[in-house]
Amino acid sequence: MEKREKIVLTGDRPTGKLHLGHFVGSIKNRVKLQDEASKCFYMVADIQALTDNADNPEKVRNNVIEVVLDNLACGVDPKKTTFFIQSQVPEIAELTILFMNLVTLQQLSHNPTIKTELKERGFGESTPFGFLAYPVSQAADILFCKANTVPVGIDQLPVLEQANEILKKFNATYNVNLFSKITGVVSDIPRLVGIDGGAKMSKSLGNCIYLSDSDVEIEKKVMQAYTDPGHIHVEDKGRVDGNVVFTYLDDFDEDKKGVEELKAQYQKGGLGDIVLKKRLTKVLIDLISPIRARREELAKDPKSIMKILESGIENARKEARKTMIEVRKALKIDYFS
Amino acid sequence: MEKREKIVLTGDRPTGKLHLGHFVGSIKNRVKLQDEASKCFYMVADIQALTDNADNPEKVRNNVIEVVLDNLACGVDPKKTTFFIQSQVPEIAELTILFMNLVTLQQLSHNPTIKTELKERGFGESTPFGFLAYPVSQAADILFCKANTVPVGIDQLPVLEQANEILKKFNATYNVNLFSKITGVVSDIPRLVGIDGGAKMSKSLGNCIYLSDSDVEIEKKVMQAYTDPGHIHVEDKGRVDGNVVFTYLDDFDEDKKGVEELKAQYQKGGLGDIVLKKRLTKVLIDLISPIRARREELAKDPKSIMKILESGIENARKEARKTMIEVRKALKIDYFS
Repeated sequence: MEKREKIVLTGDRPTGKLHLGHFVGSIKNRVKLQDEASKCFYMVADIQALTDNADNPEKVRNNVIEVVLDNLACGVDPKKTTFFIQSQVPEIAELTILFMNLVTLQQLSHNPTIKTELKERGFGESTPFGFLAYPVSQAADILFCKANTVPVGIDQLPVLEQANEILKKFNATYNVNLFSKITGVVSDIPRLVGIDGGAKMSKSLGNCIYLSDSDVEIEKKVMQAYTDPGHIHVEDKGRVDGNVVFTYLDDFDEDKKGVEELKAQYQKGGLGDIVLKKRLTKVLIDLISPIRARREELAKDPKSIMKILESGIENARKEARKTMIEVRKALKIDYFS
Repeated sequence: MEKREKIVLTGDRPTGKLHLGHFVGSIKNRVKLQDEASKCFYMVADIQALTDNADNPEKVRNNVIEVVLDNLACGVDPKKTTFFIQSQVPEIAELTILFMNLVTLQQLSHNPTIKTELKERGFGESTPFGFLAYPVSQAADILFCKANTVPVGIDQLPVLEQANEILKKFNATYNVNLFSKITGVVSDIPRLVGIDGGAKMSKSLGNCIYLSDSDVEIEKKVMQAYTDPGHIHVEDKGRVDGNVVFTYLDDFDEDKKGVEELKAQYQKGGLGDIVLKKRLTKVLIDLISPIRARREELAKDPKSIMKILESGIENARKEARKTMIEVRKALKIDYFS
C-alpha cells in the first residue's frame, strides 16, 4: 500500500479568543501533526466567520490576531506551519464557486452538521445562503493546498464527508486524479464540557476558560465549576460522573493515579469540593500560565504577527495557484495557456 | 436630478451559437448602448454556463469563441466594448462569495425566474447548488465593474431585482455607497417566438434561426414556419395572430406599410403562404447574410479573437481590482493596506 505524504489543513473562525475546548479538541493535535506532516497549513477562516457575522465585520477583523496569538502561544510553529488568512487567498473563492456545481441543495440542507447548526443559530426562514455554502467553501479550504489530513471536531465529520463527496465527484466528472481522500483526525477529547456542566465549552454559553485567562480568572471559574449538587457536606458521598472537576482532572491532570485515589475517596465521602477545585486550579494554571505568558510576549509585537501572516499568505497562494492551474485545465477554462 | 454615467454590462452563456431571438432580445440593444454608455462590458458567462453543464466543459469551451464571433459580427465593437470571459476575472468569484451572505436561501428559491428555470431543467431533488447561486453570481458580474445598465430579457427581471436587493443590503450593512441601482433595459421584442410557433426561440426546442445559418438553411426553416393551419388553399381566409411569418415580418421587415397590406389581403383570402414566406426569407437573408459574412471573415483569424479577449480581460481585471479594494475595505478584510 502506498504511504502518502500528510498535508495538514487546520484553522479557526476568528470570532473570539480560544479556550480549553479548542486546546484539547484541535490545537494539541496541530502541534503534534506539524512534526509528522510534510506540509502544514493553519487558516484564519475570516470568510467563513462572515457567513453568520456579515453585519459585524469589526468583530471578525479584531479576532484574527487573537486566534493567531492563541495558536502561536500553544506551539503551532510558523517555521513548520503556514499561517494564512482565508480572504487573502482568493483562489479559495474561485474553487468554491466551481465546487458548488458538484453538490446539490438537498445534500447541503440534509447534512447533519448543517441541520444542527442552522437550528442552533435560529435562522428560521432567513438562512444566509453563504452559511449553507460553508461545507463547499470548506472543501475548497482543504483542497486548494491538496490537504489530506484535517484535525476536526466530532460534530464536523459530516462536513468532511461532504468534502470527500465533492472531491470524488470532481475527479470522476473531469476524469482526473487531482484530489485525494481527506482523513479527519478526531481528538481524544473531541468535545470538552463547559465549566457549568453544559455539553460543550462555548463562548456563546459563557462557560469557557480561555487560553488568555489570568490565574485569578482561572481560579474564580474553577471555584464556580459544576460538581455534584447532592454533595453538600465534606462527609457526604459524592458522584464522579458528570462532575466537571473530575472530568477536567481526567483530561488535564498528568497524575492519573492520584486522580483515581481522589475519586475513590470522593465517592466514599470525606473529601470536600474545595480540595479538588484547588488541585484543578493548580493544574490549569500550570497549563495555561506559560501559554498566556508567551501570548502576552507575542502580543507586544503585532507587526511580527502580521509578517508571519504575510509570508504565510504568499506561501499559501503559491500552492493555490499551482492547484488552480490544474483545476482550470480540468474544467477546460485554461484559454490562454 | 443627477444624471449618472451609463456603465453597461451584457453577456451570453457560451452554450451554443446565437440566434435571431438573441439578436432582437439583446444584441441590437448592445450595439446601440455602446454608443451611449461611458463604459461597456461584454461577458462570456462560462462559469454560469458550467452551473448546469458541469459535466460538459467541452461544450462550454467550444462555444466561447462562437458567442464572441456572433457579437462581433453584429457590430458589438471591441473598441467601444470590453470583451471578457467570466472565469478569467476571479474577482467575480470573490465578490460572489461575499454577496452570498447578504441573501437568504429562501429569497433565492422563491425567485420567480429561478423557480421557472428549475422546473424547465427538471432538476427535481438534485438542484446543483451553483445553479441556485447564479443570481448572486450575476449580481457580482454586474457590480465588479460598477455597471448600472443591463440589457435583459423580460424573464430575467426578477434576477436583476435580486441583484438590486443585494447591493442595497451591501451598502446598508457596510454603511457605504459603493454600488448604485441597476436598471434593466428590456428590448422592444424581449421574447421572439420560435419558427414552430413555440413561445420562445430556444436551442433546446430546435426552433431557431441562427445568425450563422446559410441562405439555404434560412429558406428551409422559413418554409417550415408555423402559419395558420386552417389556411389550406390560397383563396382561404387566413389568420394573422399567432402566425409566425407575420410575427417575424412585423419584427424584421422595414416596410411596415407593405406588411400591413399583406395582412389585410391574407385575412380576406387570396394570398398564399409561399408568397409570404418568400418575402420573409428575403428579409431574413438580407439581415443575416452580412452578419454571417462578417462572422466567417472573423472566424478565419481565431488568434485575433483571443487577443480581443485577452486585452478585454486585462481591462476588466483593472476595474475588478479597483472595486475589490473598496469592497475589502468595507468588509474590513484589508489587513495589509
